[in-house]
Amino acid sequence: MDFKEELKKYQKKVENELAKYIKDKNCPEKTLNESMEYSLMAGGKRLRPILILSTYQIFKDNIECCMPYAVAIEMIHNFSLIHDDLPAIDNDDFRHGKLTNHKKFNESTAILAGDGLMNYAYYVISEDLKNTTDPQGLMLKLKVFNEFTIAVDRMLAGEYVDTEFEGKPISSDYLEYMHKNKTGALIRLCVRIGAILGEATDEQLEELTSYAEKIGLAFQIKDDILSEEGDELITGKPVGNDREKNKCTYVTKYGLQEAKDILEKIISEAVAITEKHGEKGEFLKQLAIYIKERNK
Amino acid sequence: MDFKEELKKYQKKVENELAKYIKDKNCPEKTLNESMEYSLMAGGKRLRPILILSTYQIFKDNIECCMPYAVAIEMIHNFSLIHDDLPAIDNDDFRHGKLTNHKKFNESTAILAGDGLMNYAYYVISEDLKNTTDPQGLMLKLKVFNEFTIAVDRMLAGEYVDTEFEGKPISSDYLEYMHKNKTGALIRLCVRIGAILGEATDEQLEELTSYAEKIGLAFQIKDDILSEEGDELITGKPVGNDREKNKCTYVTKYGLQEAKDILEKIISEAVAITEKHGEKGEFLKQLAIYIKERNK
Repeated sequence: MDFKEELKKYQKKVENELAKYIKDKNCPEKTLNESMEYSLMAGGKRLRPILILSTYQIFKDNIECCMPYAVAIEMIHNFSLIHDDLPAIDNDDFRHGKLTNHKKFNESTAILAGDGLMNYAYYVISEDLKNTTDPQGLMLKLKVFNEFTIAVDRMLAGEYVDTEFEGKPISSDYLEYMHKNKTGALIRLCVRIGAILGEATDEQLEELTSYAEKIGLAFQIKDDILSEEGDELITGKPVGNDREKNKCTYVTKYGLQEAKDILEKIISEAVAITEKHGEKGEFLKQLAIYIKERNK
Repeated sequence: MDFKEELKKYQKKVENELAKYIKDKNCPEKTLNESMEYSLMAGGKRLRPILILSTYQIFKDNIECCMPYAVAIEMIHNFSLIHDDLPAIDNDDFRHGKLTNHKKFNESTAILAGDGLMNYAYYVISEDLKNTTDPQGLMLKLKVFNEFTIAVDRMLAGEYVDTEFEGKPISSDYLEYMHKNKTGALIRLCVRIGAILGEATDEQLEELTSYAEKIGLAFQIKDDILSEEGDELITGKPVGNDREKNKCTYVTKYGLQEAKDILEKIISEAVAITEKHGEKGEFLKQLAIYIKERNK
């Protein structure tokens, strides 16, 4: 399997779906829709939707039934980025190498665009639930919807802890708690959505949840490493930003080398889980390795 | 029927349910939960949940099945107030005579508390859907969930138009469009939720929707009138605030007397709709009159 090729195929599928869902609405709030679309379509790795689709494909082929959830999760992710970037929170001017939403539009528009994307995610889910006629499928999707709301709640809690501890010393327990929620909760959710809709057994679901928790943590550690030693032109984010802002990260907490060692260890554990699914697990395996090796 | 007595009974029921749902969570994000609870339990008329319950009771008695939606709508309403009050939007310091969320806590907490309340509303709905075993009931609730997300989308569009036109001249078409969405969409939704869950006929649903649109408009006009000539100690909001900020309202647009005439006319039309339901429609009838006559 050519991982990069496969990844691009997934990304393209997700981009197409996102563009389809974010369609023009009526005139007066046109700018609000533009602002939602601006952030949603501004690029990014689309890791979360791809996790849903690729986990599902371990078990089944027709990924269409996952699409509303893949789209919804990317809307939630982008809502959280818009609000995170706001002056009162991270006060960032750039995201994916482009102006952040409040810099491109203005602060009130960015607040409402974030709200709008979160709500639109739930609209997409509600449409899918309403149109699901098969009772077994509906039951699985209701479980997914419920887990979805819980994961978003966890994400917000993690963001809150992040803002609360900015510039303050943080215990490693809290650091882990923060990451587990802020970035980990959605990643865990995505893998679980794919497995639940794919009708994985309980044991498979638990193992894949563990895979997700590992790559979620790895993703954050890698982000922290990139923020310290990445190439600003490639990451699109200023290097040393976290340290300058006195943010608590894996790198500021453990130092660069130890952070890299932790990353290595948990990725190899994640890889071991995917290997149980043989060829079907190959994409998730390569994805774990990619998370470790990516340069943006 | 003693309307005031009945209203208090409904309010108490709603307060109890809200308190039950906003329960303490774990330690690290305690302040975030406190901040959500602060705004949710800060008072207010609870008009929206009461509209759901009282419309439902035209048709059926067991209001328990409406409670998750009544609670969810009040969470959405309070989320929108928290974000509306933010410095970048209305920049208000007081709400229900208390400090606004960002004044009591801080701006980043207020942003996340608003996000958290919106998401929690959907959590409450997801729990209810997951636990609904009766297929017919589930079908009605899925319709409700779908309409819920659409109404919140409309509310956000209305808020956006409101911020966009602040301090600028606005046509009466846009003024109406803004109100219809900003406050009207949720009020309309509430009556529809009550009627849908109560299994109203299509004709009854349409008529009650028209009632809701009328009282929604009346509510906004009355708010505008109170903002111009209300008692600051009773409304908890500074008098003349809208005019000073150059906000476009029914009063600044049509003048005080004409605004009162419009209010009178649409309330009598709303009352006529409730009279079709005889004794069962009495609460909604009195509610329409109360909206016109309230002093806060």
